Amino acid sequence: MPAAVAQAMLAEGRALRVIAIEGIAERSLDRFGATWMALGQLGRLFAFLRRENCGGVVMVGAMHRPALRAMRIDAYGWTFLFDFLRNIRRGDDGMLRGMSRWFEERGFPVLGIGEVAPRLLAPVGRLGAVAPPPEALAAARRGLACLDALSPFDVGQGLVVLGERIVAIEGAEGTDAMLARVAELRDRGRLPRAPSGVLVKAAKTGQSLKVDLPAIGPATIAGAAAAGLAGLAVEAGRLLILDAAGTAAAADAAGLFLFGLSRGPAA
Amino acid sequence: MPAAVAQAMLAEGRALRVIAIEGIAERSLDRFGATWMALGQLGRLFAFLRRENCGGVVMVGAMHRPALRAMRIDAYGWTFLFDFLRNIRRGDDGMLRGMSRWFEERGFPVLGIGEVAPRLLAPVGRLGAVAPPPEALAAARRGLACLDALSPFDVGQGLVVLGERIVAIEGAEGTDAMLARVAELRDRGRLPRAPSGVLVKAAKTGQSLKVDLPAIGPATIAGAAAAGLAGLAVEAGRLLILDAAGTAAAADAAGLFLFGLSRGPAA
Repeated sequence: MPAAVAQAMLAEGRALRVIAIEGIAERSLDRFGATWMALGQLGRLFAFLRRENCGGVVMVGAMHRPALRAMRIDAYGWTFLFDFLRNIRRGDDGMLRGMSRWFEERGFPVLGIGEVAPRLLAPVGRLGAVAPPPEALAAARRGLACLDALSPFDVGQGLVVLGERIVAIEGAEGTDAMLARVAELRDRGRLPRAPSGVLVKAAKTGQSLKVDLPAIGPATIAGAAAAGLAGLAVEAGRLLILDAAGTAAAADAAGLFLFGLSRGPAA
Repeated sequence: MPAAVAQAMLAEGRALRVIAIEGIAERSLDRFGATWMALGQLGRLFAFLRRENCGGVVMVGAMHRPALRAMRIDAYGWTFLFDFLRNIRRGDDGMLRGMSRWFEERGFPVLGIGEVAPRLLAPVGRLGAVAPPPEALAAARRGLACLDALSPFDVGQGLVVLGERIVAIEGAEGTDAMLARVAELRDRGRLPRAPSGVLVKAAKTGQSLKVDLPAIGPATIAGAAAAGLAGLAVEAGRLLILDAAGTAAAADAAGLFLFGLSRGPAA
Protein backbone atom coordinates (compact mmCIF):
# COMPACT_ATOMS: atom_id res chain seq x y z
CA MET A 1 0.00 0.00 0.00
CA PRO A 2 2.70 2.61 0.77
CA ALA A 3 4.01 2.15 -2.77
CA ALA A 4 0.52 2.59 -4.23
CA VAL A 5 0.06 5.85 -2.31
CA ALA A 6 3.48 7.18 -3.36
CA GLN A 7 2.73 6.26 -6.97
CA ALA A 8 -0.66 7.99 -6.88
CA MET A 9 0.84 11.12 -5.30
CA LEU A 10 3.50 11.31 -7.98
CA ALA A 11 0.82 10.80 -10.64
CA GLU A 12 -0.98 13.82 -9.21
CA GLY A 13 2.21 15.87 -9.45
CA ARG A 14 2.92 16.08 -5.73
CA ALA A 15 6.44 16.25 -4.30
CA LEU A 16 7.08 13.71 -1.58
CA ARG A 17 9.70 12.30 0.75
CA VAL A 18 9.29 8.69 1.86
CA ILE A 19 10.28 7.70 5.40
CA ALA A 20 10.39 3.92 5.71
CA ILE A 21 10.30 2.32 9.16
CA GLU A 22 12.91 -0.39 9.63
CA GLY A 23 11.53 -3.84 10.25
CA ILE A 24 8.06 -2.79 9.11
CA ALA A 25 8.25 -1.17 5.65
CA GLU A 26 9.18 -3.08 2.50
CA ARG A 27 12.54 -2.62 0.76
CA SER A 28 10.72 -1.82 -2.47
CA LEU A 29 10.11 1.69 -1.12
CA ASP A 30 13.71 2.38 -2.09
CA ARG A 31 12.51 3.11 -5.58
CA PHE A 32 10.96 6.28 -4.13
CA GLY A 33 14.31 7.20 -2.53
CA ALA A 34 13.10 6.21 0.94
CA THR A 35 14.95 7.35 4.06
CA TRP A 36 15.07 4.48 6.55
CA MET A 37 14.56 5.09 10.27
CA ALA A 38 13.82 2.96 13.31
CA LEU A 39 10.47 3.62 14.99
CA GLY A 40 12.11 5.15 18.06
CA GLN A 41 14.26 7.70 16.22
CA LEU A 42 11.87 10.55 16.71
CA GLY A 43 14.58 13.17 17.07
CA ARG A 44 15.90 12.18 13.69
CA LEU A 45 12.39 12.05 12.24
CA PHE A 46 11.37 15.56 13.26
CA ALA A 47 14.77 16.99 12.22
CA PHE A 48 14.22 15.41 8.80
CA LEU A 49 10.70 16.82 8.46
CA ARG A 50 11.97 20.33 9.32
CA ARG A 51 15.03 20.14 7.09
CA GLU A 52 12.99 18.95 4.11
CA ASN A 53 10.33 21.62 4.71
CA CYS A 54 7.56 19.03 4.76
CA GLY A 55 4.11 20.60 4.62
CA GLY A 56 2.35 17.60 6.13
CA VAL A 57 2.57 13.92 6.92
CA VAL A 58 0.69 10.92 5.51
CA MET A 59 0.80 7.75 7.59
CA VAL A 60 0.48 4.65 5.43
CA GLY A 61 0.70 0.92 5.94
CA ALA A 62 0.01 -1.69 8.57
CA MET A 63 1.62 -1.11 11.93
CA HIS A 64 3.16 -4.02 13.80
CA ARG A 65 4.25 -3.50 17.35
CA PRO A 66 8.01 -3.97 17.19
CA ALA A 67 10.16 -5.26 20.05
CA LEU A 68 11.38 -2.44 22.24
CA ARG A 69 15.05 -3.02 21.40
CA ALA A 70 14.34 -2.92 17.65
CA MET A 71 12.98 0.61 18.04
CA ARG A 72 16.40 2.20 18.71
CA ILE A 73 14.81 4.97 20.72
CA ASP A 74 16.86 8.18 20.52
CA ALA A 75 17.14 10.91 23.16
CA TYR A 76 14.10 12.79 21.85
CA GLY A 77 12.24 9.52 21.31
CA TRP A 78 12.41 8.63 25.02
CA THR A 79 10.26 11.67 25.82
CA PHE A 80 7.42 10.00 23.86
CA LEU A 81 7.71 6.58 25.45
CA PHE A 82 5.10 6.95 28.15
CA ASP A 83 2.55 8.34 25.69
CA PHE A 84 3.44 5.56 23.21
CA LEU A 85 2.93 2.77 25.72
CA ARG A 86 -0.38 4.27 26.80
CA ASN A 87 -1.54 4.57 23.20
CA ILE A 88 -0.59 0.96 22.41
CA ARG A 89 -3.12 -0.22 24.99
CA ARG A 90 -5.87 1.70 23.19
CA GLY A 91 -5.84 -0.49 20.10
CA ASP A 92 -4.79 0.38 16.59
CA ASP A 93 -7.05 3.37 16.37
CA GLY A 94 -5.84 4.81 19.66
CA MET A 95 -2.19 4.33 18.74
CA LEU A 96 -2.55 6.01 15.37
CA ARG A 97 -4.54 8.87 16.86
CA GLY A 98 -1.81 9.33 19.47
CA MET A 99 0.94 9.36 16.87
CA SER A 100 -1.00 11.83 14.74
CA ARG A 101 -1.07 14.17 17.71
CA TRP A 102 2.74 14.07 17.90
CA PHE A 103 2.98 15.41 14.35
CA GLU A 104 0.17 17.94 14.67
CA GLU A 105 1.54 19.43 17.89
CA ARG A 106 4.89 20.01 16.15
CA GLY A 107 3.40 21.82 13.19
CA PHE A 108 3.09 18.98 10.69
CA PRO A 109 -0.56 18.44 9.78
CA VAL A 110 -1.46 14.80 9.24
CA LEU A 111 -3.12 14.39 5.85
CA GLY A 112 -5.45 11.60 4.81
CA ILE A 113 -4.69 9.37 1.88
CA GLY A 114 -7.96 10.61 0.40
CA GLU A 115 -6.57 14.14 0.43
CA VAL A 116 -3.25 13.41 -1.24
CA ALA A 117 -4.29 10.51 -3.49
CA PRO A 118 -8.06 10.68 -3.99
CA ARG A 119 -7.89 8.33 -6.97
CA LEU A 120 -7.27 5.46 -4.53
CA LEU A 121 -10.64 5.85 -2.78
CA ALA A 122 -13.48 3.49 -3.71
CA PRO A 123 -16.10 5.26 -5.88
CA VAL A 124 -19.88 4.87 -5.45
CA GLY A 125 -21.63 2.12 -7.39
CA ARG A 126 -20.63 -0.81 -9.53
CA LEU A 127 -16.93 -1.12 -10.27
CA GLY A 128 -16.60 -4.24 -12.39
CA ALA A 129 -18.76 -5.88 -15.03
CA VAL A 130 -20.93 -7.96 -12.69
CA ALA A 131 -24.04 -6.24 -11.27
CA PRO A 132 -24.89 -7.10 -7.66
CA PRO A 133 -28.33 -8.71 -7.14
CA PRO A 134 -30.66 -6.54 -5.00
CA GLU A 135 -30.72 -9.14 -2.19
CA ALA A 136 -26.94 -9.04 -2.00
CA LEU A 137 -26.98 -5.25 -1.66
CA ALA A 138 -29.61 -5.50 1.08
CA ALA A 139 -27.40 -8.03 2.90
CA ALA A 140 -24.40 -5.72 2.44
CA ARG A 141 -26.28 -2.80 4.00
CA ARG A 142 -27.17 -5.00 6.96
CA GLY A 143 -23.49 -5.91 7.23
CA LEU A 144 -22.52 -2.24 7.13
CA ALA A 145 -24.92 -1.50 9.99
CA CYS A 146 -23.31 -4.31 11.99
CA LEU A 147 -19.82 -2.90 11.38
CA ASP A 148 -21.11 0.50 12.51
CA ALA A 149 -22.36 -1.07 15.74
CA LEU A 150 -18.85 -2.46 16.34
CA SER A 151 -17.04 0.81 15.68
CA PRO A 152 -17.21 2.15 19.25
CA PHE A 153 -15.24 -0.96 20.26
CA ASP A 154 -12.44 -0.28 17.77
CA VAL A 155 -12.94 -3.59 15.99
CA GLY A 156 -14.58 -4.80 12.80
CA GLN A 157 -13.36 -3.47 9.49
CA GLY A 158 -14.93 -6.36 7.67
CA LEU A 159 -17.45 -9.17 7.80
CA VAL A 160 -19.07 -11.79 5.62
CA VAL A 161 -22.86 -11.89 5.38
CA LEU A 162 -24.91 -14.64 3.71
CA GLY A 163 -28.52 -13.68 3.22
CA GLU A 164 -29.69 -12.49 6.61
CA ARG A 165 -26.90 -14.26 8.43
CA ILE A 166 -23.56 -12.77 9.46
CA VAL A 167 -21.14 -15.70 9.40
CA ALA A 168 -17.74 -14.11 10.09
CA ILE A 169 -16.45 -10.90 11.66
CA GLU A 170 -12.90 -9.69 11.18
CA GLY A 171 -10.71 -9.30 14.26
CA ALA A 172 -6.95 -9.09 14.65
CA GLU A 173 -6.52 -11.89 12.10
CA GLY A 174 -7.32 -9.55 9.19
CA THR A 175 -9.48 -9.84 6.08
CA ASP A 176 -7.53 -12.57 4.29
CA ALA A 177 -7.60 -14.91 7.30
CA MET A 178 -11.33 -14.25 7.77
CA LEU A 179 -11.99 -15.17 4.13
CA ALA A 180 -9.91 -18.34 4.55
CA ARG A 181 -12.11 -19.23 7.53
CA VAL A 182 -15.27 -18.81 5.44
CA ALA A 183 -13.73 -20.99 2.72
CA GLU A 184 -13.07 -23.68 5.34
CA LEU A 185 -16.62 -23.47 6.76
CA ARG A 186 -17.91 -23.85 3.21
CA ASP A 187 -15.64 -26.84 2.51
CA ARG A 188 -16.89 -28.53 5.64
CA GLY A 189 -20.52 -28.07 4.63
CA ARG A 190 -21.23 -25.61 7.45
CA LEU A 191 -22.48 -23.00 4.97
CA PRO A 192 -24.83 -23.21 1.98
CA ARG A 193 -23.39 -23.87 -1.46
CA ALA A 194 -21.43 -21.21 -3.33
CA PRO A 195 -21.63 -18.69 -4.81
CA SER A 196 -23.39 -16.73 -2.09
CA GLY A 197 -22.46 -14.16 0.46
CA VAL A 198 -20.86 -10.74 0.44
CA LEU A 199 -17.62 -9.44 1.91
CA VAL A 200 -18.42 -6.04 3.45
CA LYS A 201 -15.54 -3.69 4.22
CA ALA A 202 -15.86 -0.25 5.77
CA ALA A 203 -13.90 2.26 7.80
CA LYS A 204 -14.96 2.51 11.42
CA THR A 205 -17.47 5.29 12.09
CA GLY A 206 -15.72 8.12 13.85
CA GLN A 207 -12.38 6.71 12.70
CA SER A 208 -9.90 9.33 11.69
CA LEU A 209 -9.71 9.27 7.92
CA LYS A 210 -6.17 10.53 8.25
CA VAL A 211 -4.78 7.14 9.14
CA ASP A 212 -5.33 3.45 8.78
CA LEU A 213 -8.00 3.38 6.09
CA PRO A 214 -9.02 -0.16 5.23
CA ALA A 215 -7.99 -1.37 1.81
CA ILE A 216 -8.69 -4.08 -0.72
CA GLY A 217 -6.84 -5.22 -3.82
CA PRO A 218 -6.62 -8.14 -6.24
CA ALA A 219 -5.60 -10.47 -3.38
CA THR A 220 -8.86 -9.66 -1.60
CA ILE A 221 -10.79 -10.70 -4.71
CA ALA A 222 -8.88 -14.00 -4.81
CA GLY A 223 -9.73 -14.65 -1.15
CA ALA A 224 -13.41 -13.80 -1.68
CA ALA A 225 -13.57 -16.10 -4.71
CA ALA A 226 -11.96 -18.95 -2.74
CA ALA A 227 -14.55 -18.38 0.01
CA GLY A 228 -17.33 -18.88 -2.56
CA LEU A 229 -18.73 -15.37 -2.19
CA ALA A 230 -20.92 -13.66 -4.77
CA GLY A 231 -19.20 -10.31 -4.40
CA LEU A 232 -17.70 -7.47 -2.39
CA ALA A 233 -19.34 -4.32 -1.08
CA VAL A 234 -16.99 -1.60 0.14
CA GLU A 235 -17.67 1.75 1.70
CA ALA A 236 -17.30 4.40 -1.00
CA GLY A 237 -15.03 7.34 -0.25
CA ARG A 238 -13.50 5.83 2.89
CA LEU A 239 -11.87 2.66 1.63
CA LEU A 240 -8.78 2.30 -0.54
CA ILE A 241 -8.62 0.17 -3.64
CA LEU A 242 -5.05 -0.68 -4.49
CA ASP A 243 -4.76 -1.09 -8.24
CA ALA A 244 -8.42 -0.33 -9.05
CA ALA A 245 -8.17 -1.54 -12.64
CA GLY A 246 -6.48 -4.79 -11.64
CA THR A 247 -8.95 -5.33 -8.80
CA ALA A 248 -11.99 -4.80 -11.04
CA ALA A 249 -10.46 -7.10 -13.68
CA ALA A 250 -9.86 -9.80 -11.06
CA ALA A 251 -13.49 -9.47 -9.90
CA ASP A 252 -14.75 -9.78 -13.49
CA ALA A 253 -12.58 -12.83 -14.12
CA ALA A 254 -13.90 -14.50 -10.94
CA GLY A 255 -17.51 -13.53 -11.70
CA LEU A 256 -17.78 -11.48 -8.49
CA PHE A 257 -19.47 -8.13 -8.18
CA LEU A 258 -17.55 -5.21 -6.68
CA PHE A 259 -19.71 -2.38 -5.42
CA GLY A 260 -19.07 0.92 -3.65
CA LEU A 261 -21.75 1.52 -1.00
CA SER A 262 -22.65 5.11 -0.28
CA ARG A 263 -24.06 6.01 3.10
CA GLY A 264 -26.71 8.22 1.50
CA PRO A 265 -30.34 7.08 1.12
CA ALA A 266 -29.71 5.71 -2.41
CA ALA A 267 -26.73 3.67 -3.53
CA MET B 1 -25.11 -31.02 26.17
CA PRO B 2 -28.43 -32.90 25.71
CA ALA B 3 -27.12 -35.64 28.03
CA ALA B 4 -26.11 -33.06 30.65
CA VAL B 5 -29.61 -31.56 30.59
CA ALA B 6 -31.30 -34.95 30.82
CA GLN B 7 -29.02 -35.88 33.72
CA ALA B 8 -29.75 -32.63 35.56
CA MET B 9 -33.51 -33.04 35.04
CA LEU B 10 -33.42 -36.56 36.45
CA ALA B 11 -31.33 -35.31 39.39
CA GLU B 12 -34.11 -32.80 40.11
CA GLY B 13 -36.69 -35.59 40.05
CA ARG B 14 -38.37 -34.67 36.80
CA ALA B 15 -39.89 -37.21 34.45
CA LEU B 16 -38.72 -36.88 30.87
CA ARG B 17 -38.94 -38.39 27.40
CA VAL B 18 -35.98 -37.87 25.09
CA ILE B 19 -36.58 -37.36 21.38
CA ALA B 20 -33.31 -37.66 19.46
CA ILE B 21 -33.04 -36.27 15.93
CA GLU B 22 -31.44 -38.67 13.47
CA GLY B 23 -28.18 -37.45 11.96
CA ILE B 24 -27.85 -34.72 14.60
CA ALA B 25 -28.14 -36.21 18.09
CA GLU B 26 -25.58 -38.56 19.59
CA ARG B 27 -26.23 -42.28 20.07
CA SER B 28 -25.33 -41.93 23.75
CA LEU B 29 -28.82 -40.49 24.33
CA ASP B 30 -30.04 -44.09 24.17
CA ARG B 31 -29.18 -44.42 27.83
CA PHE B 32 -32.14 -42.12 28.50
CA GLY B 33 -34.37 -44.38 26.39
CA ALA B 34 -34.37 -41.93 23.48
CA THR B 35 -36.97 -42.17 20.71
CA TRP B 36 -35.29 -41.49 17.36
CA MET B 37 -37.00 -39.39 14.69
CA ALA B 38 -35.97 -37.63 11.51
CA LEU B 39 -36.30 -33.85 11.55
CA GLY B 40 -39.17 -33.90 9.06
CA GLN B 41 -41.36 -36.39 10.92
CA LEU B 42 -43.50 -33.76 12.55
CA GLY B 43 -46.68 -35.83 12.39
CA ARG B 44 -44.92 -38.54 14.36
CA LEU B 45 -43.42 -35.99 16.75
CA PHE B 46 -46.68 -34.33 17.74
CA ALA B 47 -48.47 -37.70 18.02
CA PHE B 48 -45.72 -38.80 20.42
CA LEU B 49 -45.96 -35.63 22.53
CA ARG B 50 -49.74 -36.09 22.85
CA ARG B 51 -49.57 -39.80 23.56
CA GLU B 52 -46.92 -39.34 26.26
CA ASN B 53 -48.86 -36.44 27.82
CA CYS B 54 -45.85 -34.14 27.64
CA GLY B 55 -46.34 -30.95 29.63
CA GLY B 56 -43.73 -29.01 27.72
CA VAL B 57 -40.76 -29.20 25.41
CA VAL B 58 -37.08 -28.37 25.98
CA MET B 59 -34.98 -27.88 22.85
CA VAL B 60 -31.35 -28.77 23.46
CA GLY B 61 -28.23 -29.07 21.36
CA ALA B 62 -26.61 -27.57 18.31
CA MET B 63 -28.71 -27.56 15.17
CA HIS B 64 -27.12 -28.44 11.85
CA ARG B 65 -29.11 -27.88 8.72
CA PRO B 66 -29.59 -31.39 7.35
CA ALA B 67 -29.97 -32.21 3.67
CA LEU B 68 -33.61 -32.16 2.60
CA ARG B 69 -33.69 -35.89 1.78
CA ALA B 70 -32.30 -36.81 5.23
CA MET B 71 -35.27 -35.09 6.87
CA ARG B 72 -37.81 -37.75 5.78
CA ILE B 73 -40.61 -35.24 5.82
CA ASP B 74 -43.96 -36.89 6.62
CA ALA B 75 -47.41 -35.77 5.48
CA TYR B 76 -47.88 -33.43 8.43
CA GLY B 77 -44.27 -32.24 8.15
CA TRP B 78 -44.84 -30.93 4.61
CA THR B 79 -47.29 -28.37 5.97
CA PHE B 80 -44.39 -26.78 7.88
CA LEU B 81 -41.94 -26.66 5.01
CA PHE B 82 -42.57 -23.14 3.82
CA ASP B 83 -42.29 -21.75 7.34
CA PHE B 84 -39.14 -23.83 7.94
CA LEU B 85 -37.39 -22.56 4.83
CA ARG B 86 -38.29 -18.99 5.71
CA ASN B 87 -36.97 -19.44 9.26
CA ILE B 88 -33.69 -20.94 8.04
CA ARG B 89 -32.89 -17.69 6.27
CA ARG B 90 -33.28 -15.80 9.57
CA GLY B 91 -30.24 -17.32 11.22
CA ASP B 92 -30.06 -19.69 14.16
CA ASP B 93 -32.13 -17.48 16.38
CA GLY B 94 -34.89 -17.05 13.83
CA MET B 95 -35.04 -20.77 13.11
CA LEU B 96 -35.29 -21.72 16.76
CA ARG B 97 -37.87 -19.04 17.43
CA GLY B 98 -39.91 -20.35 14.48
CA MET B 99 -39.72 -23.94 15.72
CA SER B 100 -40.70 -22.86 19.23
CA ARG B 101 -43.85 -21.35 17.76
CA TRP B 102 -44.79 -24.71 16.23
CA PHE B 103 -44.80 -26.29 19.67
CA GLU B 104 -46.48 -23.39 21.46
CA GLU B 105 -49.30 -23.16 18.90
CA ARG B 106 -50.08 -26.86 19.44
CA GLY B 107 -50.28 -26.60 23.22
CA PHE B 108 -46.76 -27.63 24.21
CA PRO B 109 -45.03 -24.77 26.03
CA VAL B 110 -41.33 -24.50 25.26
CA LEU B 111 -39.35 -24.49 28.51
CA GLY B 112 -35.89 -23.06 29.01
CA ILE B 113 -33.04 -25.19 30.25
CA GLY B 114 -32.79 -22.75 33.15
CA GLU B 115 -36.35 -23.67 34.14
CA VAL B 116 -35.95 -27.44 34.07
CA ALA B 117 -32.28 -27.71 35.08
CA PRO B 118 -31.29 -24.49 36.88
CA ARG B 119 -28.17 -26.13 38.30
CA LEU B 120 -26.59 -25.92 34.82
CA LEU B 121 -26.69 -22.10 34.69
CA ALA B 122 -23.51 -20.16 35.46
CA PRO B 123 -23.70 -18.57 38.92
CA VAL B 124 -22.50 -15.04 39.74
CA GLY B 125 -18.90 -14.54 40.80
CA ARG B 126 -15.76 -16.62 40.98
CA LEU B 127 -16.16 -20.28 40.16
CA GLY B 128 -12.69 -21.75 40.45
CA ALA B 129 -9.74 -21.10 42.74
CA VAL B 130 -8.14 -18.32 40.65
CA ALA B 131 -9.40 -14.78 41.30
CA PRO B 132 -9.68 -12.53 38.23
CA PRO B 133 -7.53 -9.36 38.33
CA PRO B 134 -9.65 -6.16 38.30
CA GLU B 135 -8.27 -5.14 34.86
CA ALA B 136 -9.42 -8.45 33.43
CA LEU B 137 -12.93 -7.92 34.78
CA ALA B 138 -12.99 -4.42 33.31
CA ALA B 139 -11.93 -5.84 29.95
CA ALA B 140 -14.59 -8.53 30.26
CA ARG B 141 -17.31 -5.92 30.86
CA ARG B 142 -16.15 -4.05 27.78
CA GLY B 143 -16.36 -7.32 25.86
CA LEU B 144 -19.87 -7.92 27.17
CA ALA B 145 -20.93 -4.47 25.95
CA CYS B 146 -19.51 -5.32 22.51
CA LEU B 147 -21.47 -8.59 22.40
CA ASP B 148 -24.60 -6.64 23.36
CA ALA B 149 -24.01 -4.27 20.44
CA LEU B 150 -23.85 -7.29 18.12
CA SER B 151 -27.03 -8.92 19.42
CA PRO B 152 -29.44 -7.13 17.08
CA PHE B 153 -27.51 -8.72 14.22
CA ASP B 154 -27.96 -12.25 15.60
CA VAL B 155 -24.22 -12.87 15.84
CA GLY B 156 -21.59 -12.87 18.54
CA GLN B 157 -21.95 -15.26 21.44
CA GLY B 158 -18.30 -14.87 22.30
CA LEU B 159 -15.17 -12.80 21.87
CA VAL B 160 -11.63 -12.51 23.13
CA VAL B 161 -10.48 -9.20 24.63
CA LEU B 162 -6.89 -8.32 25.56
CA GLY B 163 -6.67 -5.21 27.66
CA GLU B 164 -8.65 -2.59 25.74
CA ARG B 165 -8.39 -4.49 22.48
CA ILE B 166 -10.95 -6.92 21.09
CA VAL B 167 -8.92 -9.38 19.03
CA ALA B 168 -11.47 -11.99 17.95
CA ILE B 169 -15.23 -12.21 17.55
CA GLU B 170 -17.08 -15.49 17.22
CA GLY B 171 -19.06 -16.12 14.05
CA ALA B 172 -20.35 -19.32 12.48
CA GLU B 173 -17.04 -21.05 13.26
CA GLY B 174 -17.92 -21.36 16.98
CA THR B 175 -16.01 -20.75 20.20
CA ASP B 176 -13.43 -23.52 19.82
CA ALA B 177 -12.35 -22.40 16.35
CA MET B 178 -12.16 -18.78 17.55
CA LEU B 179 -9.88 -19.82 20.42
CA ALA B 180 -7.71 -21.79 17.99
CA ARG B 181 -7.40 -18.62 15.90
CA VAL B 182 -6.22 -16.63 18.92
CA ALA B 183 -3.68 -19.37 19.72
CA GLU B 184 -2.38 -19.09 16.17
CA LEU B 185 -2.14 -15.28 16.31
CA ARG B 186 -0.23 -15.66 19.56
CA ASP B 187 2.14 -18.27 18.06
CA ARG B 188 2.88 -15.95 15.17
CA GLY B 189 3.74 -13.07 17.50
CA ARG B 190 0.73 -11.02 16.46
CA LEU B 191 -0.44 -10.73 20.09
CA PRO B 192 1.42 -9.92 23.33
CA ARG B 193 2.84 -12.76 25.39
CA ALA B 194 0.60 -15.05 27.40
CA PRO B 195 -1.10 -15.28 29.78
CA SER B 196 -3.34 -12.36 28.96
CA GLY B 197 -6.82 -11.88 27.60
CA VAL B 198 -10.29 -13.02 28.52
CA LEU B 199 -12.81 -15.19 26.71
CA VAL B 200 -16.20 -13.52 27.18
CA LYS B 201 -19.33 -15.56 26.51
CA ALA B 202 -22.89 -14.32 26.80
CA ALA B 203 -26.36 -14.99 25.49
CA LYS B 204 -27.60 -12.48 22.96
CA THR B 205 -29.68 -9.70 24.47
CA GLY B 206 -33.32 -10.27 23.58
CA GLN B 207 -32.48 -13.89 22.77
CA SER B 208 -35.14 -16.32 23.85
CA LEU B 209 -33.79 -18.12 26.89
CA LYS B 210 -35.95 -21.04 25.91
CA VAL B 211 -33.57 -22.22 23.23
CA ASP B 212 -29.97 -22.22 22.16
CA LEU B 213 -28.28 -20.95 25.31
CA PRO B 214 -24.53 -20.70 24.87
CA ALA B 215 -22.49 -23.19 26.85
CA ILE B 216 -18.99 -23.87 28.04
CA GLY B 217 -17.35 -26.97 29.47
CA PRO B 218 -13.92 -28.47 30.18
CA ALA B 219 -13.10 -28.38 26.43
CA THR B 220 -13.61 -24.60 26.45
CA ILE B 221 -11.09 -24.28 29.27
CA ALA B 222 -8.58 -26.34 27.28
CA GLY B 223 -9.07 -24.07 24.25
CA ALA B 224 -8.69 -20.91 26.35
CA ALA B 225 -5.51 -22.26 27.94
CA ALA B 226 -4.06 -23.12 24.52
CA ALA B 227 -4.88 -19.57 23.39
CA GLY B 228 -2.81 -18.20 26.28
CA LEU B 229 -5.74 -16.48 27.97
CA ALA B 230 -5.80 -15.45 31.62
CA GLY B 231 -9.39 -16.54 32.14
CA LEU B 232 -13.04 -16.79 31.15
CA ALA B 233 -15.92 -14.48 31.99
CA VAL B 234 -19.39 -15.82 31.31
CA GLU B 235 -22.79 -14.24 31.67
CA ALA B 236 -24.31 -15.50 34.92
CA GLY B 237 -27.81 -16.96 34.75
CA ARG B 238 -27.97 -17.14 30.96
CA LEU B 239 -25.08 -19.42 30.09
CA LEU B 240 -24.79 -23.15 30.65
CA ILE B 241 -21.83 -24.81 32.26
CA LEU B 242 -21.68 -28.46 31.35
CA ASP B 243 -20.05 -30.36 34.19
CA ALA B 244 -19.50 -27.35 36.46
CA ALA B 245 -17.21 -29.22 38.85
CA GLY B 246 -15.08 -30.60 36.02
CA THR B 247 -14.95 -27.21 34.31
CA ALA B 248 -13.86 -25.39 37.47
CA ALA B 249 -11.25 -28.09 38.15
CA ALA B 250 -9.90 -27.76 34.62
CA ALA B 251 -9.66 -23.96 35.07
CA ASP B 252 -7.81 -24.39 38.37
CA ALA B 253 -5.40 -26.88 36.82
CA ALA B 254 -4.67 -24.50 33.94
CA GLY B 255 -4.34 -21.48 36.25
CA LEU B 256 -7.26 -19.70 34.55
CA PHE B 257 -9.96 -17.74 36.32
CA LEU B 258 -13.60 -18.56 35.64
CA PHE B 259 -16.03 -15.83 36.57
CA GLY B 260 -19.80 -15.36 36.28
CA LEU B 261 -20.58 -11.76 35.26
CA SER B 262 -23.84 -10.34 36.51
CA ARG B 263 -25.51 -7.56 34.57
CA GLY B 264 -26.29 -5.69 37.78
CA PRO B 265 -24.21 -2.71 38.97
CA ALA B 266 -21.94 -4.91 41.11
CA ALA B 267 -20.45 -8.26 40.13
